[in-house]
Amino acid sequence: MLAEREILNALSRVVDPELRRNVVELGMIQDLRAEDGVVSFTLALTTLACPLREGIVAEARKAVLALDGVRDVQISIREMTPEEKARIWAQVQPPRQQEPGVAAHLNHIDRVLAVMSGKGGVGKSSLAALLAVSLRRRGKRVGVLDADITGPSIPRMFGLHEPPPVGPVGILPAETATGIRVMSINLLLPEEDEAVIWRGPLISGAIQQFWGDVVWGDLDVLVVDLPPGTSDAALTVMQSIPLNGILLVTSPQDLAGMVVRKAARMAEHLSVPIVGLVENMAYVTCPKCGERIEVFGPSQAQQTAIPLGIPVLARLPLDPELARLCDSGRVEQYASGDVDALTEKVLQRLPTTKSVPLFPR
Amino acid sequence: MLAEREILNALSRVVDPELRRNVVELGMIQDLRAEDGVVSFTLALTTLACPLREGIVAEARKAVLALDGVRDVQISIREMTPEEKARIWAQVQPPRQQEPGVAAHLNHIDRVLAVMSGKGGVGKSSLAALLAVSLRRRGKRVGVLDADITGPSIPRMFGLHEPPPVGPVGILPAETATGIRVMSINLLLPEEDEAVIWRGPLISGAIQQFWGDVVWGDLDVLVVDLPPGTSDAALTVMQSIPLNGILLVTSPQDLAGMVVRKAARMAEHLSVPIVGLVENMAYVTCPKCGERIEVFGPSQAQQTAIPLGIPVLARLPLDPELARLCDSGRVEQYASGDVDALTEKVLQRLPTTKSVPLFPR
Repeated sequence: MLAEREILNALSRVVDPELRRNVVELGMIQDLRAEDGVVSFTLALTTLACPLREGIVAEARKAVLALDGVRDVQISIREMTPEEKARIWAQVQPPRQQEPGVAAHLNHIDRVLAVMSGKGGVGKSSLAALLAVSLRRRGKRVGVLDADITGPSIPRMFGLHEPPPVGPVGILPAETATGIRVMSINLLLPEEDEAVIWRGPLISGAIQQFWGDVVWGDLDVLVVDLPPGTSDAALTVMQSIPLNGILLVTSPQDLAGMVVRKAARMAEHLSVPIVGLVENMAYVTCPKCGERIEVFGPSQAQQTAIPLGIPVLARLPLDPELARLCDSGRVEQYASGDVDALTEKVLQRLPTTKSVPLFPR
Repeated sequence: MLAEREILNALSRVVDPELRRNVVELGMIQDLRAEDGVVSFTLALTTLACPLREGIVAEARKAVLALDGVRDVQISIREMTPEEKARIWAQVQPPRQQEPGVAAHLNHIDRVLAVMSGKGGVGKSSLAALLAVSLRRRGKRVGVLDADITGPSIPRMFGLHEPPPVGPVGILPAETATGIRVMSINLLLPEEDEAVIWRGPLISGAIQQFWGDVVWGDLDVLVVDLPPGTSDAALTVMQSIPLNGILLVTSPQDLAGMVVRKAARMAEHLSVPIVGLVENMAYVTCPKCGERIEVFGPSQAQQTAIPLGIPVLARLPLDPELARLCDSGRVEQYASGDVDALTEKVLQRLPTTKSVPLFPR
């Protein structure tokens, strides 16, 4: 005979991803019954919109089915009444409902630069980190917004592991050894290798919160590290954050160039100016004989840049030392004249006017 | 004085992304009025779910606001009645509603292997292509489903550029020189570097069509090339395609390992078995002095694999020759004993039973 407590206990591991509380605590489980190994209940959700609903229902079913003696689970779904919703929102998010995006109004961010590629693994994140480090060395006030929600690597590079403090008006960014402010989903996860299995709307919501609900304060430059692709994350950054420009990153492979051109087309469609192109991983220098090896083939940077009408700002090598420092959280110790020269060019070319977001937060 | 025709004309450029027809043609615009430069109308949608709704409303507003003499736009939204919806579905998708995923019922696919990483740029696509080539050389009937909708690189590697033919029951896959069947969004684009700026639901829809509406025919193995991340594409593949297993790909950087562990966690959560781990880009051999250079640092494969309880099936080098062949569409000419040995292991370890999709197409 199944005890109600046992079932509720199993269900309390199912978390509403939007509200970030479990469904039992939120009062979402109603009319719970168990008879002959068949468990039935009503799940009252705040929305019947698809991706959220599917996930919660599937997880609730799985959690109960895993219990000994359960043969079947019957779940009815209904949308909460406006009164029920109001009670939950009041309980869960009082500051945000009262003053949406309040932090954004207190922030003074001079310029926002997005680092984008379209292609994965060309070193966007390490380049975003290196630009931030180089800007910081020049005395700039710098932030890094990690918009890669499913593959965030910025905190690891800076050796940041602690959850960021929450202040009265919003979340405070973490701060690196040299004073760079950082916000990333990985700072908010219990384990850094926990998966964030979210569909687009949640990805977009997280990015909008990193912009609107984080107390960045006064910054000269905010660097936004974009994930690969031209879907939700890139769309949300381009549509809801007032960007000053985009720095495109590619690798020498022509295949990478093709995908990078897709990213450039997207920036054009959304009217965000491209500052220039960086060819990363251009070569590696043999530590034994000094030979320059073009591991991804000869440079294709000009072939990619010319049709887009943008300049090639740097060709950077693959450097095992950088990989080592990034892995051990010490990217701030890396020094490179090439990166400093690139930073200078980016500062000169990054427009002072901001693009106007279509859907501002 | 604004003419109704002018407003409807502007609105006819707003397309419902799900139905792929414009909102005027679909009868979604109702109660249109224009007075003193203020245009008001009701938008009747098939769903009030978030991402779709926001996009259509914003586009409709923008289209009308762009007209001379329009000061403001007031849009009311309502969900269509079941009768209205039935009429629209009958009008838009008669064949699909009558026989959903008809091609899927004609296909006989023995085993489906997804190549996944979580991390971008570790060589998932080239590995997926090489596995297909190696399987084909053993006489297997092989297909490659390119699930990377925003950064598809499979067609380029095989030198495929022509749009695939459409048959009476579905789309026919393209066929490579050695007879590998391929489906990819890039085969359907007018230009291979055109951007696919789609939010999650469209990404998922495309992948489901590549599974259910493509006439794969009889295959021994279908290789699915996943994009980076653990969001819509990966979720859709794991939730709607009956997979036999996942091959994980990593690079030696510990940072990559962290993101790959996220992908492994996702596979666990969704109960899809992992066949093993491949460490790609493990080293490059200096062409001048023969030195093995570990460009991304020393191997981390065991540290990644052991906690996951999976074997390391191969450590593959970075090979400029492979990059060159992929760029020029001749991946089928690449030969590697390491890849053949990996293929043998994958064939042995890939389960013959399929996972049961939560939300089958």
